[in-house]
Amino acid sequence: MNPGPTLRWLFGISFHLMERPVLAFIAPDVGVSIALPAMEVSRLGDSEIPIEACPYGEDPGTWSAAVQRALDSVGLSGARVAIEPRSLRALELDILREAAPDLKPTSDPDFFEGLRAAKSVEEVAHIRKAVAIAESALRETIPSIKGGVTERAIANKLVEALLRAGSDPTLPFAPIVATGAHTADPHAEPSDRAITRGDCVLIDWGAAWRGYCSDLTRVFCVGEPEQELQKVAELVAKANEAARAAAAPGAPASLVDAAARNVIESGGHGDRFIHRTGHGIGLEVHEAPYIRRDSRTTLQAGMVFTVEPGVYLGGRFGVRIEDDIMITEDGSETLSGIDRKLVVLPYAP
Amino acid sequence: MNPGPTLRWLFGISFHLMERPVLAFIAPDVGVSIALPAMEVSRLGDSEIPIEACPYGEDPGTWSAAVQRALDSVGLSGARVAIEPRSLRALELDILREAAPDLKPTSDPDFFEGLRAAKSVEEVAHIRKAVAIAESALRETIPSIKGGVTERAIANKLVEALLRAGSDPTLPFAPIVATGAHTADPHAEPSDRAITRGDCVLIDWGAAWRGYCSDLTRVFCVGEPEQELQKVAELVAKANEAARAAAAPGAPASLVDAAARNVIESGGHGDRFIHRTGHGIGLEVHEAPYIRRDSRTTLQAGMVFTVEPGVYLGGRFGVRIEDDIMITEDGSETLSGIDRKLVVLPYAP
Repeated sequence: MNPGPTLRWLFGISFHLMERPVLAFIAPDVGVSIALPAMEVSRLGDSEIPIEACPYGEDPGTWSAAVQRALDSVGLSGARVAIEPRSLRALELDILREAAPDLKPTSDPDFFEGLRAAKSVEEVAHIRKAVAIAESALRETIPSIKGGVTERAIANKLVEALLRAGSDPTLPFAPIVATGAHTADPHAEPSDRAITRGDCVLIDWGAAWRGYCSDLTRVFCVGEPEQELQKVAELVAKANEAARAAAAPGAPASLVDAAARNVIESGGHGDRFIHRTGHGIGLEVHEAPYIRRDSRTTLQAGMVFTVEPGVYLGGRFGVRIEDDIMITEDGSETLSGIDRKLVVLPYAP
Repeated sequence: MNPGPTLRWLFGISFHLMERPVLAFIAPDVGVSIALPAMEVSRLGDSEIPIEACPYGEDPGTWSAAVQRALDSVGLSGARVAIEPRSLRALELDILREAAPDLKPTSDPDFFEGLRAAKSVEEVAHIRKAVAIAESALRETIPSIKGGVTERAIANKLVEALLRAGSDPTLPFAPIVATGAHTADPHAEPSDRAITRGDCVLIDWGAAWRGYCSDLTRVFCVGEPEQELQKVAELVAKANEAARAAAAPGAPASLVDAAARNVIESGGHGDRFIHRTGHGIGLEVHEAPYIRRDSRTTLQAGMVFTVEPGVYLGGRFGVRIEDDIMITEDGSETLSGIDRKLVVLPYAP
């Protein structure tokens, strides 16, 4: 296992994923070992579980020997070991191959992500706080959304507001602030485009609290919205509501996706809803459960995920309305509460 | 090649590294293809070089077929291909194996990093701007460094100042603000520890401009410094200066490391300088060239890297002084200019 959310979740230690490999090995009933740069060893003090440290110096030629020591110390040199495919890189795999040619690294995303999918009460409290910070920062930023202001300027204001509101300094992602036709790109990056009259403005943003993320999206119109934008915004809000209503323990994740998709299809925009309905949030901003048409996940109490249907009319506008919800014992609770309708803002307040 | 700095550098397109794979293939004299989520295809419009898009939908079962199409379209299905070991993950390697069992992915870090190591005039201009933003933000933050203020509060002020000064919203890294004995951990994270009288304060921070990074470190003392801190700070400043003076085209990177290390060794703290002297900066905040004792790199004009010797006295304090320098035709130019000596600040201004 290398630096990332699972290592942090299991042991409370966080490393940056760097050009120097950090590799932790867990052998059930034996122990935990880790190969890491000597200068990082002091970090292991944060773990409540004892970890055998196998440090190395600056010379990359010594990495493989440290990994070998770490594997030997927990008796895993020839074993089949589960790895996290989204986290382990060719860098680490190459070193593993050199250090232990008989080791069989086997990708097992569901195992690692499954550990973290249903949240504890404390984890949910952190996510709630991250949602509250995000909502308060957006409220503070809304007065800046007006004619002539650039996407980049709004994004910077929003980031400042997130930090002032108490977000961890490492945000879960750089906010998306898209205006006009840019809103039709679900992953647009803030540009120097300035708001013109009648522009749709889409903001997809989140905060982090003790490492836990929130992830929300809201849409605005600066000046009077064209009729079609108003209609699409109502449709997407209805899809968002339907998906949240379908979320319950024991329900398939695919049903939540279908609930949103049915509303948008019946509104005639099925082919413009070009992504899944949602994804889990926690220490990662995208993690299990994934709320997709083809998902085989059954929802469980404690799972926290986004519900974010969208409709994108290329060259014109896009609308996405994203909330964070938690599966409860008997249904779901929506953690985010900020107004979901298309908010019309004055062009020149 | 998957999302990351090299893809951005070659084609001007940037993707987030996500749970969905994005894989680009370059076949010399044939062309470029990319397997990617359908909703991301519009991003390819930013590339000046034509790229064959092989999109896939939300079902992960379709990823491998898209990768197969991308490989076939540039005739690479059975080839030996160079991969970036710090960027490609087990996720992508598993899909490559499924899509093209005859493909031979071969880690070649030097090839990819080598492409980007010597910067163009435009790239250096971006780094200069990132340095200027960082320095201006630090100046704005200095008045907050005083008795009773927490590391976290200073870090948040600094991030706000970086954004106000014009940094890209995605900072190269979350600033390190360490106080007191925390400064002895080279990678400390901001905590709720408040400054007490006589504390050493170490700030390691950077800005980004058009994706290019700066990375600097300065140290302060709040109230009168103990004599040993003053002495160590002078020693580290001397080591920093010696390393910068040794940097020139044609010189081995190891010589720059040795220049800093000799000064610190002759000051009696050789065993407390527990890391390399520096690393390249560019689209990544850690990239080639690496300035290490065992480095085999020869410096070339246009290379930009940090010079950051440090001395860490566990349980007491640590001092690191980090500048960003560029190799010129006949020596080097230091891009950062903010005062390098231990700045003494009033405890209660």
